[in-house]
Amino acid sequence: MYQDYIDHMRSIADVKFALAVLQWDQETYLPIKGAAFRGQQMATLSEISHKMFTDEKLGVLLDQLNNDSSLDKKQLRNVELTSEDYNKHKKYSSRFVRKLSEATSRSYHAWIDARKQNDFNVFERDLNALVDLKKEETQILGYTQHPYDALLNEFEKGATVQWLDGLFGDLREPLKKLLDKIQAKPAPDDSFLHQHFNKDAQWKFGIEMLKRMGFDFEAGRQDISEHPFTTNFSAEDVRVTTRIDENDFTSMTWSCLHEGGHALYEQGLPAEQYGLPLGEYCSLGIHESQSRLWENCVGRSREFIRYNFPLMLQYFPQLKNTEAQQVYAAINKVQPSLIRTESDELTYHFHVMIRYEVEKQLIDGALAVKDIPGFWNEKYKTYLGVDVPDDKSGCLQDIHWSHGSFGYFPTYSLGSLYAAQFFKHMQKHYPDITALIGEGDYTKIHKWLQMNVYQYGRMYTSDGLCNKITGETLQQSYLIQYLTDKYAGIYGF
Amino acid sequence: MYQDYIDHMRSIADVKFALAVLQWDQETYLPIKGAAFRGQQMATLSEISHKMFTDEKLGVLLDQLNNDSSLDKKQLRNVELTSEDYNKHKKYSSRFVRKLSEATSRSYHAWIDARKQNDFNVFERDLNALVDLKKEETQILGYTQHPYDALLNEFEKGATVQWLDGLFGDLREPLKKLLDKIQAKPAPDDSFLHQHFNKDAQWKFGIEMLKRMGFDFEAGRQDISEHPFTTNFSAEDVRVTTRIDENDFTSMTWSCLHEGGHALYEQGLPAEQYGLPLGEYCSLGIHESQSRLWENCVGRSREFIRYNFPLMLQYFPQLKNTEAQQVYAAINKVQPSLIRTESDELTYHFHVMIRYEVEKQLIDGALAVKDIPGFWNEKYKTYLGVDVPDDKSGCLQDIHWSHGSFGYFPTYSLGSLYAAQFFKHMQKHYPDITALIGEGDYTKIHKWLQMNVYQYGRMYTSDGLCNKITGETLQQSYLIQYLTDKYAGIYGF
Repeated sequence: MYQDYIDHMRSIADVKFALAVLQWDQETYLPIKGAAFRGQQMATLSEISHKMFTDEKLGVLLDQLNNDSSLDKKQLRNVELTSEDYNKHKKYSSRFVRKLSEATSRSYHAWIDARKQNDFNVFERDLNALVDLKKEETQILGYTQHPYDALLNEFEKGATVQWLDGLFGDLREPLKKLLDKIQAKPAPDDSFLHQHFNKDAQWKFGIEMLKRMGFDFEAGRQDISEHPFTTNFSAEDVRVTTRIDENDFTSMTWSCLHEGGHALYEQGLPAEQYGLPLGEYCSLGIHESQSRLWENCVGRSREFIRYNFPLMLQYFPQLKNTEAQQVYAAINKVQPSLIRTESDELTYHFHVMIRYEVEKQLIDGALAVKDIPGFWNEKYKTYLGVDVPDDKSGCLQDIHWSHGSFGYFPTYSLGSLYAAQFFKHMQKHYPDITALIGEGDYTKIHKWLQMNVYQYGRMYTSDGLCNKITGETLQQSYLIQYLTDKYAGIYGF
Repeated sequence: MYQDYIDHMRSIADVKFALAVLQWDQETYLPIKGAAFRGQQMATLSEISHKMFTDEKLGVLLDQLNNDSSLDKKQLRNVELTSEDYNKHKKYSSRFVRKLSEATSRSYHAWIDARKQNDFNVFERDLNALVDLKKEETQILGYTQHPYDALLNEFEKGATVQWLDGLFGDLREPLKKLLDKIQAKPAPDDSFLHQHFNKDAQWKFGIEMLKRMGFDFEAGRQDISEHPFTTNFSAEDVRVTTRIDENDFTSMTWSCLHEGGHALYEQGLPAEQYGLPLGEYCSLGIHESQSRLWENCVGRSREFIRYNFPLMLQYFPQLKNTEAQQVYAAINKVQPSLIRTESDELTYHFHVMIRYEVEKQLIDGALAVKDIPGFWNEKYKTYLGVDVPDDKSGCLQDIHWSHGSFGYFPTYSLGSLYAAQFFKHMQKHYPDITALIGEGDYTKIHKWLQMNVYQYGRMYTSDGLCNKITGETLQQSYLIQYLTDKYAGIYGF
């Protein structure tokens, strides 16, 4: 009977991963005129997978398996998680799913138009309708304290407004103080990063970086897309994408390390659990911890730069009058700015906190959609001290809301927080980790992540996993300490 | 009600085209370790599409529509063709489908192994099992005269052994005589074609050729694969692939023209008939007529070479001491050889006839699987005068049988025959066609093909289409005349 469950789940996975292939192709290779039929093809696969997942037969099977005493711990956990997912899916009427899908599609196009016209008003009406549906969704899903909790749960099970208010509250002041200290010092020179860097050289260097970090090119590949992303069609086919800015090779490089971190996680998940919860990632926050760990804790470390500098010089001879130390300082330059995706490790979290505030208040009704730009601009002034000149560099910069993804942004900061806490613990376990990074040896990092994160899939919640690994729940102190140490060294305070 | 039929058919098409995307990806970009799960994903989509197509609801709908007097001619034809397809699909038990799919998979791997070991015996047992199943299939499908007719019908509706015996019989002698005349003359020098041609230059030249012939890169793309093919996910997303041999730029070039001809057909099919028979190609023979027309009638013509020679020189300066006329003669050199895919326009048909004879006799039981190599080698000696040194260059060279595709090969020759007949008729309609090719102007060819072939989809059978266009059924005389004219000019007889 457990085998029937596996078979059913694997068929669903086959359809979902086929859909993922179509999406990947859409972002990488789809010719422009192919978009309309492709949209239709993806909608059909999505409908089929939804039907398969809400099939009564699966419900009956799950009921039986929930009372099956012959199952082992992993099997039970799979059944438990699928039952949760099944019951959640069942809450949605097909009428609501269709309405949401249509509203999302309209919102997305309105967002594109609004960006073109650099005018939030163009987006407002459709976003408003979408926010109303998301509010309705909080009722469908249910919550005990705050309606936004229901949406947070979609991305990070167990996350609540109460918890995040505390976490972000405790993070904000220390980060502000650190920023003040940094801004009192002269900024490192990073002008040499803004030369012309040949596309082809960048591409090859990116591939080399992925190889060096352990990405398995026999179980994945890299391609070019407008926005970098990682997707997977099994643990043995994980694909990352990157983009190349010919005036800045760092954008491509650290995007490779970021997506590479996501990809190592997906390649490390247990392939034999294909289609089952234990073959899936723990949560978005944990997924992001993997990308941030590689991008920042490893990739923006002094040792990493030192080791990889000779290769950099090989591909980018225009850096020949630069020292590794200067590159290290330059890529860690702190500078409050308007655009989240271009921000440094420190100010990044203010960008997230602002979006968190907007979403929370949109969903509980304290903020109206029409008031987003004003609220946004005011927060950017307060948190980052920057003036937002227009909507495009302001509240229209991210795609997330147009997709109906409310509750997603906080997982970005959670990722950094988990990464810092995990990395600290890894350093305790292997005191030579930092030295090994200086030798380009990531064997112990791979081993630690495999042992502590990858192998478990969704066995534990993110909170449970964090406790299991580090002996405590998520603490803001690790990230603060990590950033303080780094910037004290660079800025000298 | 017709709309319900459209909706159902379009959903099936969405799944089938999703499957085609997965296949395309498998041939172009799939990382090696991803193959196992990909196979599973494709099997699941294939099963889903089969279930959707044999759904009783579709049967009921078709019954009602077959008696619906409100339908117009095109709608009626769609319903008629879908009914035929539906009834055919219904004949197969799911048990038989599974057996066939498993046998095919085993055969394919056995064929790979047999090629590696260069030994037909390694393939024999699985091929034997597959041939038995194909014989069983002829009973399932039914036939009136020869069992092989049932299989031919899968690729070319209406084709029979009786008809092909006549056609090939009438073709063989004249082609043999032509070959004798050619072989009595000195062969043109083609040594300059076998220099080193840079991969990148070849790739760019191929893209340029596709553009020149009218391939719409906004509704398609080209990629690299081991074996060139054309696939489509709608009329607005048609993909071709090519391969590059650095010691011979002609392989890539004429493969581009060949696949480009297939692709123009797919891009020209009526997009509004997506998912319906009238949005599909007429038959494999007609599809092949499109590739051969562009590859040979257009692409191997004196005028085509003359016009494109300056571009060739631009990409391949190593041809600078060569004349266009020499290139024309060299790419049309006739040389009996072992490998079908590398053969010239004339001897090609002997390769097909041999395969036709093998298949026909395998299916009616006159030839045993174990006797294929002997039969094959003897025929190569008789038809082409060449000695087959081993199985790899002999009866193991093609993938088709390992896929269970019996009845496919004849469509290759039918393609050349239709192409010659169509091209002759096109020249009657537009007497300046040849001159225009010499100016790189294919407008009239596009117009003629759109008007006579593309727009109809499956409206007519290939025989019906041929009659409609040319006023007569398929004649071998056009191909013989076309080849005679060409080689008389080149070889001077």
